[in-house]
Amino acid sequence: MTDTSPLATPFPALPEIAGVTRRVARAGYKDWGRCDLTYIELAEGTAVAGVTTRNLCCSSEVEICREGIKNGRARAMVVNAGNANAFTGYRGREAVEQIMTQVAAHLGCAPGEVFVSSTGVIGVPLPKDKARDGLAAAIMAEPCSWQAAAETIGTTDTFPKGAAASAVIGEARVQIAGIIKGSGMIAPDMATMLGYIFTDAAVAPNLLQQMLGEANRRSFSCITVDGDTSTSDTVLVFATGKAGNAPLTSMESPGADAFQAALTDVCTQLAHLVVKDGEGAQKFVEIAVTGAVNDESARRIGLSIANSPLVKTAIAGEDANWGRVVMAVGKAGEPADRDRLAISFGDTRVAADGFPVEGYDEGPVAAHLKGREIRIGVDLGLGDGRATVWTCDLTHGYISINADYRS
Amino acid sequence: MTDTSPLATPFPALPEIAGVTRRVARAGYKDWGRCDLTYIELAEGTAVAGVTTRNLCCSSEVEICREGIKNGRARAMVVNAGNANAFTGYRGREAVEQIMTQVAAHLGCAPGEVFVSSTGVIGVPLPKDKARDGLAAAIMAEPCSWQAAAETIGTTDTFPKGAAASAVIGEARVQIAGIIKGSGMIAPDMATMLGYIFTDAAVAPNLLQQMLGEANRRSFSCITVDGDTSTSDTVLVFATGKAGNAPLTSMESPGADAFQAALTDVCTQLAHLVVKDGEGAQKFVEIAVTGAVNDESARRIGLSIANSPLVKTAIAGEDANWGRVVMAVGKAGEPADRDRLAISFGDTRVAADGFPVEGYDEGPVAAHLKGREIRIGVDLGLGDGRATVWTCDLTHGYISINADYRS
Repeated sequence: MTDTSPLATPFPALPEIAGVTRRVARAGYKDWGRCDLTYIELAEGTAVAGVTTRNLCCSSEVEICREGIKNGRARAMVVNAGNANAFTGYRGREAVEQIMTQVAAHLGCAPGEVFVSSTGVIGVPLPKDKARDGLAAAIMAEPCSWQAAAETIGTTDTFPKGAAASAVIGEARVQIAGIIKGSGMIAPDMATMLGYIFTDAAVAPNLLQQMLGEANRRSFSCITVDGDTSTSDTVLVFATGKAGNAPLTSMESPGADAFQAALTDVCTQLAHLVVKDGEGAQKFVEIAVTGAVNDESARRIGLSIANSPLVKTAIAGEDANWGRVVMAVGKAGEPADRDRLAISFGDTRVAADGFPVEGYDEGPVAAHLKGREIRIGVDLGLGDGRATVWTCDLTHGYISINADYRS
Repeated sequence: MTDTSPLATPFPALPEIAGVTRRVARAGYKDWGRCDLTYIELAEGTAVAGVTTRNLCCSSEVEICREGIKNGRARAMVVNAGNANAFTGYRGREAVEQIMTQVAAHLGCAPGEVFVSSTGVIGVPLPKDKARDGLAAAIMAEPCSWQAAAETIGTTDTFPKGAAASAVIGEARVQIAGIIKGSGMIAPDMATMLGYIFTDAAVAPNLLQQMLGEANRRSFSCITVDGDTSTSDTVLVFATGKAGNAPLTSMESPGADAFQAALTDVCTQLAHLVVKDGEGAQKFVEIAVTGAVNDESARRIGLSIANSPLVKTAIAGEDANWGRVVMAVGKAGEPADRDRLAISFGDTRVAADGFPVEGYDEGPVAAHLKGREIRIGVDLGLGDGRATVWTCDLTHGYISINADYRS
């Protein structure tokens, strides 16, 4: 068992969301004494939106999820932990369809309104008998806490992860709560990020999808642990519409901006928690890029820095190695001018105008790098584009988790 | 001092190349008791071709090299080891121009016929006095061996690297010999690959550039240690024309194919040596991709696998983790069909048609993975595109070299 991440935070108090009922059970996908099947029921009329992995070798779950998202309606979701059901061909797909059919029969809904995710070992079809019996047990179980659900969707996560926010839409206060599992991993499992966000707001499915896209662009698309992309990554948002607000139908609807901000807030909190449970992570790193030709260029430069093994090992070594940051800026392939670059660690500028800042005070830099939360600032001096991305350092712990194990 | 790589090979016997004279001296760029300035004189009429880093924050040396390559003529080259002269603004550029002027005065040639590279610490302008005195000493020194030159261009390389091949052009046998320094690195230095190839063949500069491009595409562009790209990477080819062959002017010239094959051979040997001295490398990994939609797609998929920290740590752990290979294929963004993929380790196919091969013999796979040279085969089942790429594993040694050091 891996130790809890030094960057872990306590599980927060999450509000209840009207129209959302959580239950968990033990399907026994692995030989472990914990619950590993999560079943969440959603009120009739719930809207759904989702984003999924760009990996072209994705799982059957992801393929089927994408079909359901197009319809925009959901009645339930199921998460299997311990078996990713990926690279399992038609047998894997049959297992997913069995789960959808079983839930649909219980709720009297269409199978396409049931969303299934799986995470864990790959190459082994999800055992249909365990899925059937586990799901039957979950359906009959007492409702459980947010924390129990967050723990049950986890695999090698070292702590459960949740976040919340609220917004005012007209007269109504709406709540948003989310749980996520992250990138802890033990071979031969693959790191998979599965996130589920719930709100009692009434939001049209098309708008919900647009808002999730915007939130995702500023949160999950701005984090990286090691640059590898799981075949199963999925984030779903469910809106039950029980808050009684005038339904949001476009960004012009009153309160839409506030809801967007709250949704982005929850996604950003969840994204940070995934980084804080990155394999071997000892430090949480925020990279703020400014002065790029546009925001997307800034994001790409930020991720080039965040994915650089040389930058990440320098952070692990508490070394203000701005030269490696310059290298990572240059390899991003985005517009950059070596002689206009400025780089800071914490609040101290260490390089400017293509040259090290002579005689900068190394004391605060060294002190900043010894902390748990590291800030790197990069100004390109070209335009107004900006983005912030987050990652963790690259340590011996990453190698131990991923290399010292034999499958 | 880092131990010699377990993948090191003895320095080979390289042929003398008529028109090439090597000399080395101690400029004292660092406080070390070794030669660190290499000066190589080339006969009048020598043609030059080159490829340089795609990093947009490149050094002044690289910028100036690119100008010289356009002219196609060379009389000398100089390599400074211990100071990369990168991110040093106009002061760095002045130091390079001083070296070019000094050599040009000695040889009575144009400054643009002198090619300069530097490798080592960044952010510190190359000290002009040390460069001037070191170069003066080198010009007066006795000619030295290939191995001495290969050792002098090195920085944190753990062994000197050289390769040779020959080809017949009409009645003449031409020789090709090359030396290279690779990706050993200690912070705050950046990994830099500097390669120099010499031939006595007569080849027109334009054709030499075309041939180097082709050789580079199959060799240096197919290796990776950690996916990071130095700001100084440079490979130059010098053709003195002393072999007496009928000059090659196009790929239709008799013997051009043979020369191309020999040049690609030398580049490939040198590229492999760089990987074998990758930081922390314990295993040399060859990834052969077949069945892609075209060769470039195959190369990109190969590099996606070769750059995946999860694949590289699995190799370090001697784990036949084909699931991570599937992930890396899918994240490449190139055409791939999960259900047609086949993957082998050594000579054993472990997955085919999107499913693990049931009951494959694990004995030979485990034995293969315990070796120093690992072969991974990936067939995409889509077309005739193929490429082979090379990398090393990702080990605790990499973290130790790059994180445990403080600059």
